Amino acid sequence: MKIINIGLIGCGNVGAGVVKWVQKNSNLIEARCNIKLRIAKIAVKNLNKDRGLGRDSALLTTDAESLVNDSDIDVIIELIGGTDDAGSLVVSALKQGKPVVTANKSLLAFHGDELFKLAKDNDTDIYFEASVAGGISIIKYLKEGLAGNHINLIYGILNGTCNYILTRMAQNGEDFNDVLKDAQRLGFAEADPGLDIDGHDAAHKTCILASLAYGEWFDIDSIHVEGIRNLELQDIHNSAEAGYTVKLLGIIKLDSGRIQMRVHPALVPSTSLIARVDNEFNAVWVHGDVVGDTMLYGRGAGQNPTTSAVIADIIDVALNIKCNSANRVAAFQPHQSYDNVLTMAEISSRYYLRLSLEDKPNVLAKIACILGDTNISIASVVQKESDSNRLPVILITHTAKESDINTAIKKIKELPVVHDKPVILRIEDI
Amino acid sequence: MKIINIGLIGCGNVGAGVVKWVQKNSNLIEARCNIKLRIAKIAVKNLNKDRGLGRDSALLTTDAESLVNDSDIDVIIELIGGTDDAGSLVVSALKQGKPVVTANKSLLAFHGDELFKLAKDNDTDIYFEASVAGGISIIKYLKEGLAGNHINLIYGILNGTCNYILTRMAQNGEDFNDVLKDAQRLGFAEADPGLDIDGHDAAHKTCILASLAYGEWFDIDSIHVEGIRNLELQDIHNSAEAGYTVKLLGIIKLDSGRIQMRVHPALVPSTSLIARVDNEFNAVWVHGDVVGDTMLYGRGAGQNPTTSAVIADIIDVALNIKCNSANRVAAFQPHQSYDNVLTMAEISSRYYLRLSLEDKPNVLAKIACILGDTNISIASVVQKESDSNRLPVILITHTAKESDINTAIKKIKELPVVHDKPVILRIEDI
Repeated sequence: MKIINIGLIGCGNVGAGVVKWVQKNSNLIEARCNIKLRIAKIAVKNLNKDRGLGRDSALLTTDAESLVNDSDIDVIIELIGGTDDAGSLVVSALKQGKPVVTANKSLLAFHGDELFKLAKDNDTDIYFEASVAGGISIIKYLKEGLAGNHINLIYGILNGTCNYILTRMAQNGEDFNDVLKDAQRLGFAEADPGLDIDGHDAAHKTCILASLAYGEWFDIDSIHVEGIRNLELQDIHNSAEAGYTVKLLGIIKLDSGRIQMRVHPALVPSTSLIARVDNEFNAVWVHGDVVGDTMLYGRGAGQNPTTSAVIADIIDVALNIKCNSANRVAAFQPHQSYDNVLTMAEISSRYYLRLSLEDKPNVLAKIACILGDTNISIASVVQKESDSNRLPVILITHTAKESDINTAIKKIKELPVVHDKPVILRIEDI
Repeated sequence: MKIINIGLIGCGNVGAGVVKWVQKNSNLIEARCNIKLRIAKIAVKNLNKDRGLGRDSALLTTDAESLVNDSDIDVIIELIGGTDDAGSLVVSALKQGKPVVTANKSLLAFHGDELFKLAKDNDTDIYFEASVAGGISIIKYLKEGLAGNHINLIYGILNGTCNYILTRMAQNGEDFNDVLKDAQRLGFAEADPGLDIDGHDAAHKTCILASLAYGEWFDIDSIHVEGIRNLELQDIHNSAEAGYTVKLLGIIKLDSGRIQMRVHPALVPSTSLIARVDNEFNAVWVHGDVVGDTMLYGRGAGQNPTTSAVIADIIDVALNIKCNSANRVAAFQPHQSYDNVLTMAEISSRYYLRLSLEDKPNVLAKIACILGDTNISIASVVQKESDSNRLPVILITHTAKESDINTAIKKIKELPVVHDKPVILRIEDI
């Protein structure tokens, strides 16, 4: 039986999972795939940290480059994260024609282009299922299952931390900051939560999915990113009353031959399946021109789901080694050029607007006039009673241009009867 | 660029979809996969039927065997269904080492074992993604994405016709027979609906999924099958009141080293994601020991979703031809022997029971006594008011053995105060 020697670089949470499950399920993998996976070497920064590896501690080294250069090692698993060391190690492996499996979304978002070219030029593989939505096989689905489909649309709940926070806000009526603190305590959010809650992690993943869907490795800067840090409980409640659930979505759309790419909180119909994706779970909704609507659901992070994706990739690499079929499915195949990525001003959407208005005659009429004058049609208005002199008014619009919304909001803000900053959220009618 | 010549056998609804989309999306497929798919020949029964093929009508023949024997044809797509002609054509192709793509679930459920062995012995491929849940890539997910996972559990909504009928019964309060008639009119149900509504179609698919998950090609007869033909509206309503939605599920479970395989209507919590899978959509919920809970959702039938799966398979075959890597992923790899399949008497479940009782003192006490005496513990009881002398009583049990339920029901039926046949539905706490 073909033995595949694995060089594991990085043995934190996910790395330890890979060691554990490759061993625990080795009989199953051998029986199913007729290959034997063997953890040959593990490179770590600190030899003395207890990783619960038992006798596998003998496999540890601090010299990561030695794994890359070891001719007995068949595949490099990069799990150290970041772009510097990880990048040079991955480059070094690919240059030697050694296949790489990585879970490193930022490395791919920033340097994917170069790495894929290296893999191709050196007739080897780079697999990265674990970089987007962990246990969900969305990379394989896009590249293989939907290979014959034009992708019209992707909606992704791609960040478990944000989805966990939004679920608790919606279901328990807790404030953002309270949930965040508790999520940190429970391990659902990092001590430094910015990468998650400000939408950047979701943007990296959105960038990868968009690139695979549209055959162009997009610049991460071409994605519009808003996080959930400033989301107020009252807007989640108002949305629910109007029949919507607020989710942080990675949105990718083909729009008259151009691409929309954006990450922001969005109102989705509460009856839609994606609105029901709760807690730390991820989901990716895809509409392909042949297949129609589909959705994949599962845990997007954590030791085990990420490990499952890494092992699937290792098996793919192992089968390619066994069959001498490297690059059978290209890591990334540039394939179609679209005009460009739309700026936010160019998109159209429906909008949820919350204004804080003075309780005076004619105020709502003025707002309605401004919206009408900027081609924005109102679908519904709810004016809430209030003890104070400031009335919260929630307007839901029909489809409008974002540039028109910006113009209208600028004018509305200038009215002396308008207080506080207007809240604007986009609606996605899934 | 590698050209792959396709011999299409059968050009009904799905076949016409394959012809249409292979041509419509050929540029995309070439660009993404660096292969050119070409419909070379199409075998049909009736040359004169208008299939909207235009100039491709020149590719038609009535001699299906000639496609199999044509050395210029690289892959056979079998879309005629049934087991007789389809079986002999597929066998003939595989014996010549010619790869086959099929959507034929009954052929696989009845003869999979033999066909997989033939493919392996002749170093060629048989792919069958379209045989289960159309546009959902569940076969690839089980065989590749979850290759490193022990599968603990699969719940499948695998028959779109049944799910469509159940959705309308639940949401519109329509009777089974009325919805069935309308579904037939709308094309969501066949003129002869037995294969669907009696659960056999779902059983074929359940058999395929179980076999892939557990590495043993199970006999279709080892699956317990109940359909939805006798499902009454009142039970769907009572379930909803208790917080459950009724779905026809294909259920596969690893149960202390033995396998449960069954298809029947089941109550699932209305808050669960699978309860929200409505209308003609399919979904497959999988729990793997590494990945945890995941779900795939999409259309399981119809021209386009099925075509998407067939094209994905053709691309896999084409890549194997290009890379000379036939059998890179075995069509089916026997891999693990479990003791056996549990009989229904051996399973445990929670149960929904509806009894029709005479309105007399002490009647409920008698029922409770019988249940208690057979180790069945009651979780909830709802006795509905009624104008007649017969009271519908709904009991929901804690987990009990099916054999105990059978014993209890037999005793309950013998009570003179019990009228009509008791209704028994199983509950799955997803």
